[in-house]
Amino acid sequence: MEQALRVCVFGATGYTGIELLRILATHPRVKITSATSRSHAGRDVGDVIPTLRGTRINCLTLTEEPEKDFELAFLCLPHEGAMDIVPKLLKEGKKVIDLSGAYRLSDPDLYPSYYGFRHTHPELLKDRAYGLPEVFRERIRGSSLIANPGCYPTASILALYPLLKEKTEIEEVIIHALSGVSGAGRKTKQHFHFPEMEDNFFAYGVERHRHTPEMEEVISHVLGREVPVRFTPVVVPASRGMLSTVYVKTKERDILDLYNEVYAGEPFVIMTNEPPMPKWVIGTNFCYLYAHYDAKTSTAVIISVIDNLGKGASHQAVQNMNILAGFEETEGLMNWATFP
Amino acid sequence: MEQALRVCVFGATGYTGIELLRILATHPRVKITSATSRSHAGRDVGDVIPTLRGTRINCLTLTEEPEKDFELAFLCLPHEGAMDIVPKLLKEGKKVIDLSGAYRLSDPDLYPSYYGFRHTHPELLKDRAYGLPEVFRERIRGSSLIANPGCYPTASILALYPLLKEKTEIEEVIIHALSGVSGAGRKTKQHFHFPEMEDNFFAYGVERHRHTPEMEEVISHVLGREVPVRFTPVVVPASRGMLSTVYVKTKERDILDLYNEVYAGEPFVIMTNEPPMPKWVIGTNFCYLYAHYDAKTSTAVIISVIDNLGKGASHQAVQNMNILAGFEETEGLMNWATFP
Amino acid sequence: MEQALRVCVFGATGYTGIELLRILATHPRVKITSATSRSHAGRDVGDVIPTLRGTRINCLTLTEEPEKDFELAFLCLPHEGAMDIVPKLLKEGKKVIDLSGAYRLSDPDLYPSYYGFRHTHPELLKDRAYGLPEVFRERIRGSSLIANPGCYPTASILALYPLLKEKTEIEEVIIHALSGVSGAGRKTKQHFHFPEMEDNFFAYGVERHRHTPEMEEVISHVLGREVPVRFTPVVVPASRGMLSTVYVKTKERDILDLYNEVYAGEPFVIMTNEPPMPKWVIGTNFCYLYAHYDAKTSTAVIISVIDNLGKGASHQAVQNMNILAGFEETEGLMNWATFP
Amino acid sequence: MEQALRVCVFGATGYTGIELLRILATHPRVKITSATSRSHAGRDVGDVIPTLRGTRINCLTLTEEPEKDFELAFLCLPHEGAMDIVPKLLKEGKKVIDLSGAYRLSDPDLYPSYYGFRHTHPELLKDRAYGLPEVFRERIRGSSLIANPGCYPTASILALYPLLKEKTEIEEVIIHALSGVSGAGRKTKQHFHFPEMEDNFFAYGVERHRHTPEMEEVISHVLGREVPVRFTPVVVPASRGMLSTVYVKTKERDILDLYNEVYAGEPFVIMTNEPPMPKWVIGTNFCYLYAHYDAKTSTAVIISVIDNLGKGASHQAVQNMNILAGFEETEGLMNWATFP
Repeated sequence: MEQALRVCVFGATGYTGIELLRILATHPRVKITSATSRSHAGRDVGDVIPTLRGTRINCLTLTEEPEKDFELAFLCLPHEGAMDIVPKLLKEGKKVIDLSGAYRLSDPDLYPSYYGFRHTHPELLKDRAYGLPEVFRERIRGSSLIANPGCYPTASILALYPLLKEKTEIEEVIIHALSGVSGAGRKTKQHFHFPEMEDNFFAYGVERHRHTPEMEEVISHVLGREVPVRFTPVVVPASRGMLSTVYVKTKERDILDLYNEVYAGEPFVIMTNEPPMPKWVIGTNFCYLYAHYDAKTSTAVIISVIDNLGKGASHQAVQNMNILAGFEETEGLMNWATFP
Repeated sequence: MEQALRVCVFGATGYTGIELLRILATHPRVKITSATSRSHAGRDVGDVIPTLRGTRINCLTLTEEPEKDFELAFLCLPHEGAMDIVPKLLKEGKKVIDLSGAYRLSDPDLYPSYYGFRHTHPELLKDRAYGLPEVFRERIRGSSLIANPGCYPTASILALYPLLKEKTEIEEVIIHALSGVSGAGRKTKQHFHFPEMEDNFFAYGVERHRHTPEMEEVISHVLGREVPVRFTPVVVPASRGMLSTVYVKTKERDILDLYNEVYAGEPFVIMTNEPPMPKWVIGTNFCYLYAHYDAKTSTAVIISVIDNLGKGASHQAVQNMNILAGFEETEGLMNWATFP
Repeated sequence: MEQALRVCVFGATGYTGIELLRILATHPRVKITSATSRSHAGRDVGDVIPTLRGTRINCLTLTEEPEKDFELAFLCLPHEGAMDIVPKLLKEGKKVIDLSGAYRLSDPDLYPSYYGFRHTHPELLKDRAYGLPEVFRERIRGSSLIANPGCYPTASILALYPLLKEKTEIEEVIIHALSGVSGAGRKTKQHFHFPEMEDNFFAYGVERHRHTPEMEEVISHVLGREVPVRFTPVVVPASRGMLSTVYVKTKERDILDLYNEVYAGEPFVIMTNEPPMPKWVIGTNFCYLYAHYDAKTSTAVIISVIDNLGKGASHQAVQNMNILAGFEETEGLMNWATFP
Repeated sequence: MEQALRVCVFGATGYTGIELLRILATHPRVKITSATSRSHAGRDVGDVIPTLRGTRINCLTLTEEPEKDFELAFLCLPHEGAMDIVPKLLKEGKKVIDLSGAYRLSDPDLYPSYYGFRHTHPELLKDRAYGLPEVFRERIRGSSLIANPGCYPTASILALYPLLKEKTEIEEVIIHALSGVSGAGRKTKQHFHFPEMEDNFFAYGVERHRHTPEMEEVISHVLGREVPVRFTPVVVPASRGMLSTVYVKTKERDILDLYNEVYAGEPFVIMTNEPPMPKWVIGTNFCYLYAHYDAKTSTAVIISVIDNLGKGASHQAVQNMNILAGFEETEGLMNWATFP
């Protein structure tokens, strides 16, 4: 094996951390030199994460602080923790892929109201790349800091992008998206206690959700002007998976043609003839898309599905790493979902 | 006990039939004189439906044809079967509450394209009442034939009605609704096989769904003009329950006040301060509603939850029966969901 | 209405408390005069428990301490809290039905190792009745303190009782029982976080479970000698429901006859010809039983299902109250499960 | 790449067929030359199985009859179909791994009562190898026909094998095993319709199950004498996964030591210190085992978990292929479950 990229995973025992370890453990060009976990420091990966027993990182000991010897950091930390550590890592010459929301918004003024804290490193918000390869691939290639997108923005922007790229006249966008419960993280909550979540589903964050400005920024960036987004997230009784439906009023057009054309060369975007299902993409980096034009209401209806922990988080982070490190973009990501 | 109303349930072993039997079996003013089932004729209710062992209809024998001795029929039959039998029942002087779609649309011309058959009794479509009591209570009271609404229209029209009643200027309505799997009926299908449906959710009928014209007719009836509906139904991995989100562009207003006022006296509509959950209403006739005005996009966002087999079918049918028979409207319907 | 029994529910916002409130709220002979909740004191029942909006206790305010004016207390408290409060309530002349484990074991020496505390009122352990009506009905009738049985013992002893009553020669009993997650209570835990519990199932307490000595005591009481129990509980991805399988080596006999005979007059025990399903009994006080004799291994295999929160907890508590108060034993308990 | 093994999958669109295609599609030493499907002949793999879009077999056309050009056949067919085709394939010089039950029992007389047909090729039952590598590895290596074990026998025999190998004195074995619904196959059934199976679990085949004689034959083969098995299978509301609990009366011993020793070199058997969970092994060939000796009842309690479609079917079939073809036994099988 040629020289492996030495990586460190910060916050390895949350859901995005575990999924990252799982795919990095079989990535042919990567060596995980350390993995941090505040709650499980001192124990081995295989003891804490039974699904990783038998992998090549089975006996890697989780630590509070990382070993120094790494080139690239994946941050699976709380937003503020990630915000604080990024400048230090960059100063040490490391590359950083941040899976938190700390660097996703380019406008620092949005942080207090959407994240509840003032951003202490606003200068980095301009330089960072937004890690959605299908839209910002070139920018990612040259960057040291990549803000890995939120799961809802990933699913929704991919559903919207061809219309944006064409500079379609858009007044506003309605996004109604469903997510499996793992999107809310690993921390237990009353609503997500199995007996209460089973057979249940509900909207949340209807008045305010931090992924709304994230989507609005990308839209305005690509389109060149501001477009407001009405975003309603709903949690459904599934472990993983995300389904986003995007409604855009626009004049009639062959929408499927457009989508096929824009995504022709993309290895991880697949167009479908029927509404896709999250079960098709669990544990993978794929996004399946379905596009319909509703002539009666002059509305384009586009439906996308991703794995919120796959293309919506950890697999996309590895895609970004592949681009950044000059690997084949699909390296280590050619996995397919189990069925059923 | 004063004289009980003698009722017959046609098609008693599908999901709406079973739920009807369950609540009618404890209704203090009703006697179930017969129940039909093509597939289980000759067997007793308690043998075929183990949940009804021990009820007062445990030993009622299911029959292919009903006993003659009833005053009111509940039809839980396929659409065409219901369409055919209604005229005969009316001729015999029976009252009919039809839970199929056979008499839901008032325009006979819509049946071929939405239901796949020509309507053979278009004259009855004018006389029938549409059984949504919160909107058409007076009409129901005097009618012999009630078309019990579809589950999506029930949830969605209740979410929309106060805006319609106020003659709000509306260009179009976007309805995005989630349903538990029982909404698709009891017949097995590959997609609904447990291993494939678990942890899965998907849109269907995106291009055409028969509940769309049903909603459009009610809207145009109340509002006095045509308004197109963009309707996207999604099935989620829950047994029962429905959550409908309605988007309407409209000028700013105190939307919660309006809803509280319009629904003030309604026993089965409850306004909530947070997005409601289907788990709150399973096995009941309640509809919980949440209303939010999104100033940024000038959009009213109203969320409703019902039990698709409760207010969305069998419980609403009993509510209609209570109105029709002159009983207390809440009689036999004051049940509350188990939690969790 | 004749004079209602005035009851207080201690610990009203856990799962057993909520289910108790739900059925007591429609019980024709009961008035809930107060309900306590440490975490929600000061708020109304309908605000805290949305499923009880619209009931006659919708506006009952939860309190830290109960109003004095009650005759019977239901304790849905932690074990030690229940242990402490019982003597005070008895001294005040109240009747007590304790849903915790504090008074379930008659041998005080078992508490330290199985419950982790010394019992401070061992004298009460002799006087209390064990609230399994099918076995101890007469004893319950005259008692002031009823220890409501655990869910596993309820399901398993009902499966075993006819064999015990006949003084069958038994060397030991193997009990393998499955429970829905609500059996573990409302407090969140990592294993029961929806994403981790969905599609998952696992044994726990294999080496030691506090329901084992509870079952052994009842068995030895009925049989007149000690019989060891091997008990393996397994939690399955369901909200409610319990299925217990009991294996007993015994000589060949017509086991179904025996069961039919012993349970002939019992309103809540129903024999079935095929293995029963928990879905048949959710939200009810019923126990469905199936009995098979396996000649090859000389083993009686008996399968029982109950709702762990129904016959396994709150509904059985109401059955005990009915007996204690001299009401019809089935009063308020003639409910049937929704299906599906 | 050196010369790939050319394989054909018969019955590729059932659950075991799909899972086989998924892992064979990334196996470095295999080329799938054809895949048959009666119901989907003429369509491409990626169209019929959306999870396999983008794999190297995306455009492989499913056929009614296989292309001739293969060396090894995997049979994912109904029992009788498999029974009939095996002799033809062997005559043509193909190797066969049969995932049906057609060749699992060595005693032909058991087929009529357990499978409902007379076995037409009893002579092959002696020559075939029973494909449980941990027990019969050497026999598998030299065989042309491998009967891939049932899922329950795989989980249960692995739980029992160390005790058998030691010639432990055993009178009988009680096996209580839980399975996810996919174990019942892809064909829809009323009980497995999502609304009825969700939140439900039930025993079946209590009086007779075809995996019982399969387990008894292996036990008697290893132990050298007959031991009857009491087997109770239970289906639980999970898509995949199996948990088997085995009870054996035996004298006290350090059971964990024994298991660690016997399974020391096995790549796919992992001992755990706490009861294992199926979620740890979904989509893999692993079996996790937990062993406890219950001194009070002199009973060894061993718990195993596997993926019923992994080690319980398709992954074990690939393990058998690897042995047969002289590949590294773990080739293509070093996958780890997604979590959560």
